[in-house]
Amino acid sequence: MSIKNVASIGEFGLIDIIKTRFINLNNNDNIIAGIGDDSFCFKYGNKNICITKDMLIEDVHFKRHWISPQELGEKSIEVNVSDIGAMGNVRPRYALIGLGLPPKTSESFFTKLYKGFKKACDKYEMIIVGGDLVKADKIIISVMIVGVGEGKVTKRSGAEAGDLIGVTNTFGDAGAGLNLLYKYGAKHKYNKNELGLISKQNNPKARLKEAWKVAKYLTSLTDASDGLYISVDLLTKHSGKGAEIYMDKIPISSNLKKIFKENQKQLNFALFGSEDYELVFTVPNSKSVLLKKLVPHISYIGKIDASKKIKYFYNDKEQKIKYLGYKHF
Amino acid sequence: MSIKNVASIGEFGLIDIIKTRFINLNNNDNIIAGIGDDSFCFKYGNKNICITKDMLIEDVHFKRHWISPQELGEKSIEVNVSDIGAMGNVRPRYALIGLGLPPKTSESFFTKLYKGFKKACDKYEMIIVGGDLVKADKIIISVMIVGVGEGKVTKRSGAEAGDLIGVTNTFGDAGAGLNLLYKYGAKHKYNKNELGLISKQNNPKARLKEAWKVAKYLTSLTDASDGLYISVDLLTKHSGKGAEIYMDKIPISSNLKKIFKENQKQLNFALFGSEDYELVFTVPNSKSVLLKKLVPHISYIGKIDASKKIKYFYNDKEQKIKYLGYKHF
Repeated sequence: MSIKNVASIGEFGLIDIIKTRFINLNNNDNIIAGIGDDSFCFKYGNKNICITKDMLIEDVHFKRHWISPQELGEKSIEVNVSDIGAMGNVRPRYALIGLGLPPKTSESFFTKLYKGFKKACDKYEMIIVGGDLVKADKIIISVMIVGVGEGKVTKRSGAEAGDLIGVTNTFGDAGAGLNLLYKYGAKHKYNKNELGLISKQNNPKARLKEAWKVAKYLTSLTDASDGLYISVDLLTKHSGKGAEIYMDKIPISSNLKKIFKENQKQLNFALFGSEDYELVFTVPNSKSVLLKKLVPHISYIGKIDASKKIKYFYNDKEQKIKYLGYKHF
Repeated sequence: MSIKNVASIGEFGLIDIIKTRFINLNNNDNIIAGIGDDSFCFKYGNKNICITKDMLIEDVHFKRHWISPQELGEKSIEVNVSDIGAMGNVRPRYALIGLGLPPKTSESFFTKLYKGFKKACDKYEMIIVGGDLVKADKIIISVMIVGVGEGKVTKRSGAEAGDLIGVTNTFGDAGAGLNLLYKYGAKHKYNKNELGLISKQNNPKARLKEAWKVAKYLTSLTDASDGLYISVDLLTKHSGKGAEIYMDKIPISSNLKKIFKENQKQLNFALFGSEDYELVFTVPNSKSVLLKKLVPHISYIGKIDASKKIKYFYNDKEQKIKYLGYKHF
């Protein structure tokens, strides 16, 4: 018998173990969205309180010489706000920041990191309200955000057969930027297009305002932190549905097209590259035109069906897709 | 000019930087307790919502061979519940668990750790509602707990001159247990008293029920996670007061007395040893007898005065005390 470890079980296998063995929810817990969704939300009177937490770990999620401390602070907040935005009509209010720091971390690094936290929090009219500070070998940033909303929370489940699958902006830049940093390091003389890709990796922006504008029309919603492929998989699985994805409709930036000319390469970054933090959602066909008026940089890349399978097409021809993305362990 | 680092600034220096430079609270934020208190609490209608988060990091807060995975899971929940209890009349409801795990972590370690989380959550009628899983070099456990309360939240501030300073149970065992583990390792053949001390280190219990019983009579409250010396310092500083501490009144367990016979040594563990997780509070003199009826294992170890200084006495003789405790960086 081989002994299993967390790498061989994988992130989603571990989540399954947690869900089936350690979580017993019942109806009077007031929970609206729990494990497996972008944030945890519970009902309180007529309000929804949503909480998200995410850890960024040095040399796993970032390398110190690839990103400035202030950018790192801003990014840590943006990625958590993105998870709050993925619940729809929820306003981020409070940030708690946990930091693990090596004792030799300079004061300057610490204050610049905090400047980043503060700048991003100010942008979203959030306030930093606490946290914890501990010693660690590597930098650990553990941000928690509390958001408050009213009405419907938009979850990963809820997609219906016939719904269109929509996304905001373009996909693949963040993964391509990371690819460049791995290949050439931070000190390389990058051109403008390459810097655009790296910036999407280092300076992601949560699509919070877009989420607020469209949330009430959506049937399901998530933010793409692990690539479009995983996002589509999550929405369909949580909704118990299937989908057709038209890869030629996936929006690709001009930066990505200029730096990685091969079409297949662009699509690989879009499907499997992490950290684009764009919205991925489903919407009834009847609302799709209205949505594009509200948020012009929305594209429709596929549609939901009842098949429980996800089929990928390129110019109307079905393509076999093999998962090439990041494994969390 | 010497370049400062986080070790030379220290935990409380860093918190000061955060408070003065990066936090601007105003009155319409509905915040009842924020940075520097045991939990973050905000007002919601007539309820108080309290949130606490704490990280435990391998080789900083625990060594893997000193504590079983299930104990580690239980302890991670208990220490966070302790922070919720330190706000007084607040019920812990939901736990979010963030885990950083080395890829080679065995499935058995993972499930035993979760058994520990679940067991402690069940004990407090809390439910695990989510979290995140990431790869890391060392084990990181980042627990967040959401609690809900009504009425007054008991903060670190609020002590008045003349109040008595009370504590639950005994002090110093957890620090002494850690001392034994450092000295002799986990495989040593310990006697019953030594195992009692180690158990206080590995199996701390949040004094939640005690906190609920007495909260409404208290003027200030905290839980002793960094030694009694720091707890007294926090309550007086937050309240803008001073104190007299009678060291001969500090309750010491029979286990500690048997294993460390020297009186000074016992007091050092009590004052500077971490992780006892007992309640430290202030109460008007007029309520002190009632409190001991409600929770018999309460002791009074000193009293608050207006001096803004803390004086330590032993058998009525003032003693100079030098901080000997754990530095977080």
